[in-house]
Amino acid sequence: MTAFPRRIALLGSTGSIGQQTLDVVRCFPEHFRIVALAARNNVALLAEQVQEFQPSLVACFDDTPPTLAAIRTGKTIALANKETLVMAGHLVMQEAQRAGVPILPVDSEHSAIWQCLRGEQISEVNRLLLTASGGPFRRASLEQIRSVTVEQALAHPTWRMGPKITIDSATLMNKGLEVLEARWLFNIPYERIEVVVHPESIIHSMVEFRDGSLKMQASLPSMHLPILDALSYPDRLNTMGTGLVRELRWPDVARLNFEALDMARFPCFHLALEAARRGGTYPCVLVGADEEAVALFLDGKIGLLGIAELIEAVLERHQSVDQPGIADILEACAWARRTARELYALRFSL
Amino acid sequence: MTAFPRRIALLGSTGSIGQQTLDVVRCFPEHFRIVALAARNNVALLAEQVQEFQPSLVACFDDTPPTLAAIRTGKTIALANKETLVMAGHLVMQEAQRAGVPILPVDSEHSAIWQCLRGEQISEVNRLLLTASGGPFRRASLEQIRSVTVEQALAHPTWRMGPKITIDSATLMNKGLEVLEARWLFNIPYERIEVVVHPESIIHSMVEFRDGSLKMQASLPSMHLPILDALSYPDRLNTMGTGLVRELRWPDVARLNFEALDMARFPCFHLALEAARRGGTYPCVLVGADEEAVALFLDGKIGLLGIAELIEAVLERHQSVDQPGIADILEACAWARRTARELYALRFSL
Repeated sequence: MTAFPRRIALLGSTGSIGQQTLDVVRCFPEHFRIVALAARNNVALLAEQVQEFQPSLVACFDDTPPTLAAIRTGKTIALANKETLVMAGHLVMQEAQRAGVPILPVDSEHSAIWQCLRGEQISEVNRLLLTASGGPFRRASLEQIRSVTVEQALAHPTWRMGPKITIDSATLMNKGLEVLEARWLFNIPYERIEVVVHPESIIHSMVEFRDGSLKMQASLPSMHLPILDALSYPDRLNTMGTGLVRELRWPDVARLNFEALDMARFPCFHLALEAARRGGTYPCVLVGADEEAVALFLDGKIGLLGIAELIEAVLERHQSVDQPGIADILEACAWARRTARELYALRFSL
Repeated sequence: MTAFPRRIALLGSTGSIGQQTLDVVRCFPEHFRIVALAARNNVALLAEQVQEFQPSLVACFDDTPPTLAAIRTGKTIALANKETLVMAGHLVMQEAQRAGVPILPVDSEHSAIWQCLRGEQISEVNRLLLTASGGPFRRASLEQIRSVTVEQALAHPTWRMGPKITIDSATLMNKGLEVLEARWLFNIPYERIEVVVHPESIIHSMVEFRDGSLKMQASLPSMHLPILDALSYPDRLNTMGTGLVRELRWPDVARLNFEALDMARFPCFHLALEAARRGGTYPCVLVGADEEAVALFLDGKIGLLGIAELIEAVLERHQSVDQPGIADILEACAWARRTARELYALRFSL
């Protein structure tokens, strides 16, 4: 890891994680320097950020895979984007190993696991336990979930995020994607990854070792902390008094609850695990079909349970490719989006 | 750390921790070999243990300080005895550092902290948070505590231990001693050590880092696990299927509670912190006076709150010695025991 100040190229700077990354940089100007900013379409905000951080490079980037390119140039990666690992985990981790590049997780669950694994051996891990808030419909019946509005689905109880990931959190697709992400990040088979519902989102995940000891990482819900931990690794910078991370106070947090995840009410979670088990290009299809299905839900075209129905129909029609290369991955994802749209259109033309 | 099988000299083999250490050794005969056994007075049990484990050395040991002697010969120490660090922490840690000997904690709270600190830097720790079950009188009023019987005080809700430590747990003196122990083991000032009541005894302690991230270690209440972790360090042996450590199952453990510790009802805890802050030989007096006071309580001579009253009276009369040597420590402890007995006798002669 390089010395401070560290030079950061931030891809997706206008998104939720991108903006919170800039909060972290603002807080530690002596530790981090923004040398490049890239965003897809919010040009106005990007212009403001360029004004403030004065990077040497600015890009409105397209969809070619920048993570692999960055790995090949030997850059340390702090990865917030789940889809990269879900679709191309085998390629990304292989390239990272070849280049000796660490992939540092920014997702709060994976950051928690990664922190619990510090100083430990992965061969001594029994299980990874990802916690899930359960989203806004944790206690809703299947019938209630069937009729939720877009507004209700966008109101997540503990995390404020972009609309796509908020809907993925409501359907628990997001938790399913996190299982796939964990599999690649930590090189752990799916049988050793479990999910437990923890509505308070205080414990961000746990590792159970083979001696029976568990380690957990906790904080008040915050994305600033996992971002900071990835950027500053292996150091931990002092956030006391910065206002960046609110201090967790016991016994103010008086009670932590744990529940089982009910797959019957969250079919997207089940589909994600199923795609994971089948492997090949199924995870790419999962991601592509989900993007289209969530867009249709946000447009008011289908209901929340329609998301899983549409994804399942697309997965059923897929001819998977084993050990896919980048071209196979992009093609499977594009095929899934196309097929999802076609299936949706078909439903109304019949 | 030496290779397996490791040669273990077990001092105090007939006590609660000693017997549980032998359970661990029984479970992993290829990893551990008992080469010496020592006990104070349960000769019948010691004879049985000798029969089973066939050590090369057996001793009915006296009170001279064996921990320091072992450190000086370069042996790794797994330390279950709190009093050693409470009374002579400055000497023990100095000798250990000089001899390059690790002191591995066996107490469940300190084992938890030690596990959370793996791969971390002590300079980046903000606070240590020791959890306390709160003992059998967590919810009792001061009036109720005043009139508890010996039997009630010996019924600890989560931990089964010897009678002295069980009473120390009921008065929370034990938690106070653990704060002192943590101060020396981890070289952390008292201001950075806090206690939070957690009745389920699932989370054994926590470390808060300066970035705001917390790490915790958890298991079902068990002494076998911290003993095993100290003996096998830095490895973690597989206990699955051995029956030694019961697996913690989420969401079977559905709820974890946290409360503040009420010093008004647990004056022994307050006295321990006060002795800690004053330093010198005050902690030795605390330990000596507590031993006598607990013995008087177990004999039905004084009430549970009488323990703190007697210790406080002894502490008030003490002339402390700064930077005490071994002789000062043993003398302060003996003086405290003598003074406690005298003050008790005086109360009835007046």
